[in-house]
Amino acid sequence: MQHVVIIGGGFGGLAAAKALARAPVRVTIIDRTNHHLFQPLLYQVATAGLSPAQIAAPIRSVFKRQKNVDVILGEVVGIDMATRVVRVDAASEIPVPYDRLIIAVGACTSYFGHDDWAPYATGLKSLDEAVEIRRRVLVAFEQAERIADPAERARLCTFVVIGGGPTGVELAGALAELARFALRDEFRHIDPADAKVILVEGGPRILASFSEALSASALRQLEDLGVQVLLGERVTAIDAAGVHLGPRLIATETVMWAAGVRANPLVAQLGAPVDRGGRVAVDVDCSLPGQPDVFVIGDAAAFKTDDGLLPGVSPVAMQQGRLVAANLKRDLKGEPRRPFRYRDKGSMATIGRRRAIAQTRRMS
Amino acid sequence: MQHVVIIGGGFGGLAAAKALARAPVRVTIIDRTNHHLFQPLLYQVATAGLSPAQIAAPIRSVFKRQKNVDVILGEVVGIDMATRVVRVDAASEIPVPYDRLIIAVGACTSYFGHDDWAPYATGLKSLDEAVEIRRRVLVAFEQAERIADPAERARLCTFVVIGGGPTGVELAGALAELARFALRDEFRHIDPADAKVILVEGGPRILASFSEALSASALRQLEDLGVQVLLGERVTAIDAAGVHLGPRLIATETVMWAAGVRANPLVAQLGAPVDRGGRVAVDVDCSLPGQPDVFVIGDAAAFKTDDGLLPGVSPVAMQQGRLVAANLKRDLKGEPRRPFRYRDKGSMATIGRRRAIAQTRRMS
Repeated sequence: MQHVVIIGGGFGGLAAAKALARAPVRVTIIDRTNHHLFQPLLYQVATAGLSPAQIAAPIRSVFKRQKNVDVILGEVVGIDMATRVVRVDAASEIPVPYDRLIIAVGACTSYFGHDDWAPYATGLKSLDEAVEIRRRVLVAFEQAERIADPAERARLCTFVVIGGGPTGVELAGALAELARFALRDEFRHIDPADAKVILVEGGPRILASFSEALSASALRQLEDLGVQVLLGERVTAIDAAGVHLGPRLIATETVMWAAGVRANPLVAQLGAPVDRGGRVAVDVDCSLPGQPDVFVIGDAAAFKTDDGLLPGVSPVAMQQGRLVAANLKRDLKGEPRRPFRYRDKGSMATIGRRRAIAQTRRMS
Repeated sequence: MQHVVIIGGGFGGLAAAKALARAPVRVTIIDRTNHHLFQPLLYQVATAGLSPAQIAAPIRSVFKRQKNVDVILGEVVGIDMATRVVRVDAASEIPVPYDRLIIAVGACTSYFGHDDWAPYATGLKSLDEAVEIRRRVLVAFEQAERIADPAERARLCTFVVIGGGPTGVELAGALAELARFALRDEFRHIDPADAKVILVEGGPRILASFSEALSASALRQLEDLGVQVLLGERVTAIDAAGVHLGPRLIATETVMWAAGVRANPLVAQLGAPVDRGGRVAVDVDCSLPGQPDVFVIGDAAAFKTDDGLLPGVSPVAMQQGRLVAANLKRDLKGEPRRPFRYRDKGSMATIGRRRAIAQTRRMS
């Protein structure tokens, strides 16, 4: 029986494995954590609205009943396409041979050459990062509660989110609500509602992938929540003093980075060229050029359409996972593969608990 | 207004603070974590039945509406009873002056002079320890799933709990259920139900604080769940190879320590003599001998009764917290203090999900 190896238990990998439920293949999912993470809700863990367990599902539990799926907890340290072997660093290094390989490794936080900013500006792509943001935000309020100096207190109660995409907007909105509502009455010497939440965006508007009207609406909703939105501002440095916008300094101890991700570095080892975001260009069936049995899907793939690259969102990854699974089944029946076509069902950004903007077709 | 400082946000500290709700005093609770922990359910976090957030409540939230309570997140590094100041290492070291001091710092895992066992045998007194046990247990199954050698697989699937008190019994029962039920169907190469859970008790029976009949019943229930109970066995060493009982070795990688706790080391700095368990002897009103304004309650206190020392259980701590609060209110009214009397409402040990033993009066 053919062995399909899937690297990554995110939206893409899981969709592919599920779509292979009744196929006459063995499936192995390799992931370095034991859980599937519902990444779109990471901002809620970061703002203490949800606990980590609420947005993570053990991959083994997901496939309890799907007997053709095997799960390996371990880090992939190499892929040898000539011999068709994935090397996994589990307890010890184990080789996992494959017939078909689906690389669905996703993206991680990227500081675009400014890795020295990392210690000061926490990203929001993993559970660890979300928990770290939560810790930093709560500790900042705790410290402010103990400090009498007004300038130092103001610095501690200033929270800066870099990047006005959906993640930054949702995080800033949830932070403002945390300070205004969730923490209300919990402190005796400070009022968390006085906290400053600042969202810094380099472009002329937030949520650039949405229409101008929705982007303007989101801006109003954020401002209603008390978020200060700075547009067209370039971050020139982030350090212990705070966020530098050219000569201007926002004094803060808590900076969150939602300005950029790049594909998991594993795809850079495939030998294929990667773009600025670390993504590897794929063919219309999501296969690696020249490697018809190796597929790259989701955030790690650069899939070109007439409207440009597909965005790094979960519906793209899930639909690609299903398409690849369907094509593998067609391979087995000797039928020709079908090309991937993204069906954009719209996108949404949540602002605080009771507000959101939604767009039913992607504007580009 | 008098300032009552409470060190520790456990059962005792919280009960005292709540009982002071309408008293004309200011209350400050100092804790090194920001949450109150429901310790009796730690074993459920250790066995993946509950998530950490489900057994931890932010102390600030608990006292949201009780305006006379202030909370400090920080570690107490010293107590100066001559000048009535507690020194707290928060952001920086801050002195917290008090009029009355309640020390409710609880207990922590103790290896009774065998601290070299600590890396191999995880205790179960804190959330971190519970999460560490959970991680080790799940990783052991993951490793066993990848390994073909039967001896090594058996070693990885052997779990040893040291100590047959309530914590050890509950942990062993929950572990057996985790392996038999919760993880069923999740693995493809091992059957977690084949895992060996071994409970090692040095004395002649488990749950020595319960009646002999209940202790025998608990033993039967554990054995029904597949737990192997070793009685009258002394652990002579714990190392990378496993648990040594004299010449006999139980080969295992996962050892849990429920055999002993000792009072938080902070009480050893009070200048009063401590017993073998690190507890400080207190007067009938829970005050420190010679220090009528300093109280020690809960697991950190050695409270003598005609039946011996009171056990380190939450009802004792809570009742002591309430008694001390009541006496502080009597102090303010010029009324004499009342002595502490423990009202034992019975105790219970849960064995697996559907079984338990309960005793309505403590046997001693």
